[in-house]
This record gives sequence, structure tokens and C-alpha cells, in this order.
Amino acid sequence: MKRSSRREMLGAIGVAAGACVFSSCVDDAKRGPVNGGKSQPQWNYIQLDPAATAQRAYMDFSKDHCMYAVFSGIVGQLAESHGQPYSSFPLDMMVYGAGGVSNWGSLCGALNGSAAVIGLFVKAKKYRTALTNEVFLWHEQSALPTYKPAPADLDIEIPTSTADSVLCHVSISKWCKVSGHKSFSKARDERCKRLTAEIAAKTVQLLNAWQQQALATALRPTNQLQTCNSCHGREGTLENTRGKMNCTTCHSELPDEHP
Amino acid sequence: MKRSSRREMLGAIGVAAGACVFSSCVDDAKRGPVNGGKSQPQWNYIQLDPAATAQRAYMDFSKDHCMYAVFSGIVGQLAESHGQPYSSFPLDMMVYGAGGVSNWGSLCGALNGSAAVIGLFVKAKKYRTALTNEVFLWHEQSALPTYKPAPADLDIEIPTSTADSVLCHVSISKWCKVSGHKSFSKARDERCKRLTAEIAAKTVQLLNAWQQQALATALRPTNQLQTCNSCHGREGTLENTRGKMNCTTCHSELPDEHP
Repeated sequence: MKRSSRREMLGAIGVAAGACVFSSCVDDAKRGPVNGGKSQPQWNYIQLDPAATAQRAYMDFSKDHCMYAVFSGIVGQLAESHGQPYSSFPLDMMVYGAGGVSNWGSLCGALNGSAAVIGLFVKAKKYRTALTNEVFLWHEQSALPTYKPAPADLDIEIPTSTADSVLCHVSISKWCKVSGHKSFSKARDERCKRLTAEIAAKTVQLLNAWQQQALATALRPTNQLQTCNSCHGREGTLENTRGKMNCTTCHSELPDEHP
Repeated sequence: MKRSSRREMLGAIGVAAGACVFSSCVDDAKRGPVNGGKSQPQWNYIQLDPAATAQRAYMDFSKDHCMYAVFSGIVGQLAESHGQPYSSFPLDMMVYGAGGVSNWGSLCGALNGSAAVIGLFVKAKKYRTALTNEVFLWHEQSALPTYKPAPADLDIEIPTSTADSVLCHVSISKWCKVSGHKSFSKARDERCKRLTAEIAAKTVQLLNAWQQQALATALRPTNQLQTCNSCHGREGTLENTRGKMNCTTCHSELPDEHP
């Protein structure tokens, strides 16, 4: 993990103020006092090294699984280097997200952990949404995991797959199909461990860029999502659903009567 | 909100120890020190009144949406009555879960908040899983919301619907179909506000019962989930997926070649 320096500390403070220059700041201005008016310390992000974060998250996975590993891989590092307020966070609560929350297979735990870290540090809705969108779209659209741990807990070739989803159940099913490995195998566990490490590193890359006022989001939803939402989404003729998940992953066939 | 009493405080301490008598405690014993060995204060649950919690969560929804409202509706109450460590929690980070995480429509934000609260207070995996399963199954299988706020922010009749899912996108789509209201309407917002209040109250009911060593979980997954998992789940012939979400909600038709 990169050690903190005076420059980093000043950077963190500078950006906490500077971010407002580039956003509307409406969200932060509207936000009332939390905890019944008691003041909270500033939870500022301090730059971390993506490679060290990946390694840390990879190791933390063995303690309390995916969501914990991403959250602890980032906030745990800050706690160890900088103490309060980071060290006051009850990190072990994040075990709840494992396997899409208590193995329900809903939202991927590593993505839940990434979004939680972003929620902790990025107060302006515009940037919080941009960072979360980028991590989620990257997970939906990329062949993962590509992270190669050294040493690996299970030193085998781990095939990549494109999840086409942010859901644990779908992501694992797709990977099992591509790899031929079983869903409760040691190989699948190793795959999720590497994926978790990669999601932690991606989160830190984006947070670093955001803090340096150099955030450039690259990914866009599929044309298909936009087509569906033109009728079913906000201000569409039907306006009967919400969401940004890729539609055809689940709605692979349309009913005969669909236009 | 119920004021704390000496009995409640002793109850909280008693159950924190007592829970171990009834569980294997393997999870807690395996858990290493967090934050690099620095000790953490005890985050013990203290009994809350479900009705007051619902009212509080209903109001908190207007600040930062569903996940924040459930988490703040519970942990925020404890912070106001009992101070530390509850007041050290950066509650406003929980805005991240709104609309299934930054409006992605993935895991329902109120359920994400409920599971996060359970993760904070319930350390033994056996009980954490039991409580989370109960909230999630209840959300999947019940006609919701039934909560009637007084006064209501939008004083109209809100129809109920059965989500058959823990996902925001599905839950909202089902409700729009039943109610005839649009997904970005004020009525849908009021529906999610009442649902959030009800999920917060349900969480507190279960936490109270768990702490009183009187937890009796009532709900079971559908037979259909068990049938599917007998081949696709752990130790099934295929073992090519994971999860506890109801299968036929998305897999409404099976391919012709399916046995």
C-alpha cells in the first residue's frame, strides 16, 4: 500500500472542496445533518495504489468473502495508515453481502462493496453515479477476471467470462458455462477471489481519477437498453419499469405480441 | 422511539453473550481482529419499537431514499438515544443503495439496508442468514406495502403487489402492472416509501426476537427453487449456479430440450 504523504493529505482536502467547483453540489447542499445533528468527522478519500489494493482484497476474501474484501481492501488500508475516522468503521459488517447477500445470488458482493465505498467518499450525486455506473458497466461488459495473484491461493488457469449482468447468480452461471467448473468448486472460489481483487483495484483507479479531477468515464449502456427504455423507462409511452441492468440477459425472448 | 432502559441494556449484553450458547459460534471464533488488530467497540443491538421505526424510516426516505432510510431508521435511532459507537457511523454513505444501487434496479435498496443492519449486529452466520432469509422471503412472497403512514406524504390508496423477487427492477415492474401507476410517478415513490418503512419495521421485529432468543422463522423457499437446485445447485448433477432467488420469476419458460 502506498504510504500517505503531506501532498496526498492536502490533495484529499483540496479535492473534497474542489469537487464542488465541478459539480452542482445540490446534493451536498440539500443533505441535512446526520445522527440527529451531531457532527461527523470528514470521511475523505486518500489516494491508494490499485495493485496493492488488489493484493489486499485478494487476501481479505479468505476472511469474510467478496463484499467485505472490497470494502476492507480500501477502507481497511486507510484505517491502518491513517487511523480515525477510518478505523472506527465496523468493517466486519460487510460480510453480509457475500454471494449476493447471504448467498441469495442477488447483487454481486464485490460490486456492492465497491458501490458502498463510493457512497462513503463521493458525496455529489453526479460523481457518485458516474463512478458506480463505470464499475457496473465494466463488470457487465468485460471478460473477467484478468487479475493474476502472486502467489495464488489456487495456482491454476482461471478462464474469463463476460457476465452481461451485475447479479452474482448470473455472473457465476455464465462463468460455470464457459469454464466447465462447478459453482461450489475451489476453482469458482478462486475465480471470485480474483474478480473481487480486480473490482477493488478498479474502484481505487476511479476514485484516484475523480480525486485528481481527471475522471473520464468510458463505458455506455448498450443500445438495446436505450431502445427498451425509450418505451418502458422514464417518459416512455409505458413508463412501467426502472433500472440500468442489461435487459436481454433475462428477457432473452419477447412475447409474440411485443411490437 | 422506545427509550432505552437498564433492562434493555442488560438484555443487549446478555444476548450478545447468550447468542453463542445457541449457535456454533464458529464464525465468530474464526473472525480475526479487524482494522489491523486495533480493537473495535461492541456494536450491540438495543431493542427498538417496530412502529416507531417504520415512522422514522418513512420520514428518512425523503432525505436519502430506501437503503439510507432503513439503515438510518434503525442505527440513526440508536445513535440519537445511545450515542457512541452508533453515532460514529457515516449514515449518509447508505444513499448508494437507492433504486437498486444508483438506480440500476438490482437489489432492492430497502432490503440492502436491512441486510446491512443485520450484518452490523448479528455476528453468528447461522442467525445472520436466518434473519436475512426471513426478510428476503417475506419480501418475495407477501403482498406489500400494507403500512399506512399517518400523516401520509401522499394521501392516496396504494395498491399492494407480490414482488416474487428481491430485485428493485422486478418489484417495481410488478407493482406498476398491478396498480396502473407509472414507474416514475409520485404514487410509485409513495409505494416505495411505505415499503421501506415496512421493511425497517420487519427488520426490527426480527432483531428483537433474535435478541430475546425467541426467533422463529416462518418462511421457506418455494418447492420450485428446491426442485431446480436439486440439479443446478450444490451437489446437484450439474451444480452450475448459485442463489436463493425464485427461479421462475426470470426463467418463466424452459427451453424445449429441458428435462
